[in-house]
Amino acid sequence: MITKTIFVIFDGLGDRPIPAFDGQTPLEYAHTPNLDALAARSICGLMHPLGRGVRPGSDVSHLAIFGYPLEKYYTGRGPIEVAGLGKSGLAMQAGDVALRGNFGTVDAQGNIIDRRAGRISDVTPFAAAIDGMVVDGVRCRVIAGTAHRAGVVLQGKGLSAAISDADPHAEGHPVAAVRPLDDSKEAAFTAEVLNTFMRTSHETLSGLAINEQRSAAGQLPANFLLVRGAGVYPSMPAFNEKYDLKSCCIAGGGLYKGIGAFLGMDIIEVAGATALPDTDIAAKFAAAVQMTENYDFVFVHVKAADSLAEDGNFEGKKTFIERADAAAALFSNLPDDTLLVMTADHSTACELKAHTADPVPLMLCNPSVRIDAVSQFSERACMQGGLGQLDAANIMPEVLNMMGKLPLVGA
Amino acid sequence: MITKTIFVIFDGLGDRPIPAFDGQTPLEYAHTPNLDALAARSICGLMHPLGRGVRPGSDVSHLAIFGYPLEKYYTGRGPIEVAGLGKSGLAMQAGDVALRGNFGTVDAQGNIIDRRAGRISDVTPFAAAIDGMVVDGVRCRVIAGTAHRAGVVLQGKGLSAAISDADPHAEGHPVAAVRPLDDSKEAAFTAEVLNTFMRTSHETLSGLAINEQRSAAGQLPANFLLVRGAGVYPSMPAFNEKYDLKSCCIAGGGLYKGIGAFLGMDIIEVAGATALPDTDIAAKFAAAVQMTENYDFVFVHVKAADSLAEDGNFEGKKTFIERADAAAALFSNLPDDTLLVMTADHSTACELKAHTADPVPLMLCNPSVRIDAVSQFSERACMQGGLGQLDAANIMPEVLNMMGKLPLVGA
Repeated sequence: MITKTIFVIFDGLGDRPIPAFDGQTPLEYAHTPNLDALAARSICGLMHPLGRGVRPGSDVSHLAIFGYPLEKYYTGRGPIEVAGLGKSGLAMQAGDVALRGNFGTVDAQGNIIDRRAGRISDVTPFAAAIDGMVVDGVRCRVIAGTAHRAGVVLQGKGLSAAISDADPHAEGHPVAAVRPLDDSKEAAFTAEVLNTFMRTSHETLSGLAINEQRSAAGQLPANFLLVRGAGVYPSMPAFNEKYDLKSCCIAGGGLYKGIGAFLGMDIIEVAGATALPDTDIAAKFAAAVQMTENYDFVFVHVKAADSLAEDGNFEGKKTFIERADAAAALFSNLPDDTLLVMTADHSTACELKAHTADPVPLMLCNPSVRIDAVSQFSERACMQGGLGQLDAANIMPEVLNMMGKLPLVGA
Repeated sequence: MITKTIFVIFDGLGDRPIPAFDGQTPLEYAHTPNLDALAARSICGLMHPLGRGVRPGSDVSHLAIFGYPLEKYYTGRGPIEVAGLGKSGLAMQAGDVALRGNFGTVDAQGNIIDRRAGRISDVTPFAAAIDGMVVDGVRCRVIAGTAHRAGVVLQGKGLSAAISDADPHAEGHPVAAVRPLDDSKEAAFTAEVLNTFMRTSHETLSGLAINEQRSAAGQLPANFLLVRGAGVYPSMPAFNEKYDLKSCCIAGGGLYKGIGAFLGMDIIEVAGATALPDTDIAAKFAAAVQMTENYDFVFVHVKAADSLAEDGNFEGKKTFIERADAAAALFSNLPDDTLLVMTADHSTACELKAHTADPVPLMLCNPSVRIDAVSQFSERACMQGGLGQLDAANIMPEVLNMMGKLPLVGA
C-alpha cells in the first residue's frame, strides 16, 4: 500500500526535436538508463500543464500541478516569492498584499545610483530596521531575502494589489511613485501607503549607523527599498490540510521554495542545491528519500534544464539530464510504499529559447500502478502511455487515487 | 523557426469502412504515397471538430477550426455567404442583417414560375438596379453573386435576424411573406422592411429594359429577389488581428471563399479551382506555396471529397483523394520555416450520404514537431498519433504554439 509520494518536477524538461541530435529532443538524445528503467516500471502519460495550447509560466504550472488553479489562487508573483523568504517565513493572511523588493542606493536628488546597493550580500539588519512600521493603520512588514532581495507585506484593511511598481528597473532614474492601476479607492490608498512607507523608510535607512559604516568604507549605502510585483495573498487551504498529507519541499531556486512555502510545505534546505547546472541533484534526491521518514509527500524541484534551454543550450540541457539520470539511480530501490512521480512544469524549446505549450512526459512509478508498455522517459515514448494525455489538474487526483485517499462519490 | 503555415482542409474527407473496399475507408483504400510520406514526417491526431458526438456543418466547423466558436460568431449562413460575394466584397458591420437571395421569376398573380429566372447567368445589372433602397430608415444593399445568386444586407437600427424565408424553395407557389420568428419588435420591423423591399424592388425589376429584352427574347425575366437565411453580422476580430498573422484563402466554393472573407482573409483566385471533382488541386497547392511569400497563413480548401460522398460515390471519392495525393507531392519540399497542416472539416459517410460525427485525421508536418510513429494519413492510423484526440478549438493554439506566438500565462 502506498503511503508516501516523492514528486519530482524537472523544470522545462520537455523540448522539441534538435537537428544536431538527429531530430531527437534533449531528453530523448540523452543517455538515461535509470529514468528509462523507472519508466518501464511506471504508468506514463503526457501532461498539458494548463490544458492544450496554453503556454505555462513556471509559477502557475506548479500551482496547477499541486491542485491550486491559477484562476483562483494566482494574483502575481509577489506572494509566492515572499512566502519563500527567510528561515522562519512570514505568516501571511488572506488579503495581505505582498511585494518583492530590492535594497538599492539613491542619491540626494532621489535618483537611483544602484538597484542592488553594490550587490550587498546580506540585508537582514536593514530589513529589521524598517520592519513593522504602521502607515495609516497598515502594518508594513519587511523580510530579508538572499543578497539585496527582500519582501514587503502590507497587512491591514482596504488594500489592493492593483498598483504599479516603484522599481523603474533601470539606474540613473528617480524612484517611480507607486500609482493605482484602477479607479478603486483601495488601489489609491495602497499606493499612498507604499509611497509613505518608502519615503519614511528611506529616512530611517539613511540614518543607520551600518550605512554610515558602509559609506565610510567606500561601499554604497542600502538606503532605499524598491518594491515591485504586488499580489494579494489569497484565501486558500494549505497543502497539508487540503490533502491530509504532511508535505515538504526540496528546491534550490527561490521561486520554488516560495511555491512550497506558499502552499504551507516545510522547506528542507539541502547543501549543494543551487538551482544552477552545478546543483547537487544526488544530494536532493537522497534528501527526498530520507524525508519520506517524516513526510507523506516530498516535492523535489530540479531547475537547470529550463535555464539551459532558455539559453538555447541543448548540449548543456542533455548533459544536465544525464546528471539527473545518474542521480535517479537512487530511486531504483524505493520501497513499495513509496510512489515516485516524475514530470515537468512545462516544455522549454531550445529552438525558441522559450516556454512552449508542448506537453511534458509524466510517470507514476510503483508496483501498484498499471504498468504500461512505455520503457523510455521521453516526450514521444510517453505519447503511448497508459495515462493518455491529461492536464495538471488531473495529477493530484491520480496521486491520491494511488494512495487510497480519494473521497467516494455516491455509494 | 516556423513563420508560415499552409492549412489545407479537405472537405468531408473522413468516412466509414466501405465493403467494396475490403472494409477500408476511401482515404485508406486510396493509393496515397505522398500524403502518407507527409504524415510520416508529422505529428498526427484525430479531430472531433465540434467535440465528440457532434455532427458538424461545414460552415460552423470551419469557423471552429479557425478559432471562432459557433456559440459566439455563427448566426446563420447569410453573413458568411454574403461576405464572399463580389470581387470588391461588401463591407458589413456588426448588427447588419445579411441574407442570401435568388433572382427569380414571378407571374402577375405573384406565383413563382422559376426560382432561378431560367438559370440566368449574370444578375449584376439587376442587383445594381435595386441596390441602396432605403426603407423606414434601413438601407438595403444588394450584391450580385454567381449565376442567379445575390446577397442582401440590411443596414440600420433595430434589426433582427429572427425572421422567416421569403423563398418557399418550390415553384408554383406564391412568394412567402417574411414573418417574425419571435415576439420582438425588431423581428416584426425587419420582416416589414424586407416585405416592403421585395415588393418595391419587384416593381423596379419588372420595369427594367433588360427584363423587357429578356421577355422579347423568350427568356424569363429576373423580376423578383427571393431572400432566405437571415443572419446578423457579429462583432468579431478579423483573423489577421486575432492572431497577428497575415492570411489569405484559396477556395473554389462560394461558401469557403465566404468563410475566408467573413474572417477578413484576402481571397486568392486560382484558375481551375472549381470546387468540383475536376478542380485543379495542383494549381491550388502551387498557389498556396507561392502565397507564403506574402502571407503568414494560407488557408486552402478542397471541396469535392465531400460532394462525392454526399452522392454515395465512394469510387469517385477514392479517385479524387488520389488526385489530391498526386498534387500534394508539391508539399514534400516545403522549407523548414513552413508548417503544413492537413485535416478535414468533418467526415462524410458514403454509406449515409451525409456528414457524420466521426473524427477526422489531422497532421502537423514540420521538422520542429515531435514527429510520431504514424506513417499513413488515414482515420485509423491517426488514432495512434501523438496529438491524441482533440477538438477544432485546439487547432489554432497548436499552430500558434509551433509558430512561437502563444502568450505566456503566469511567469
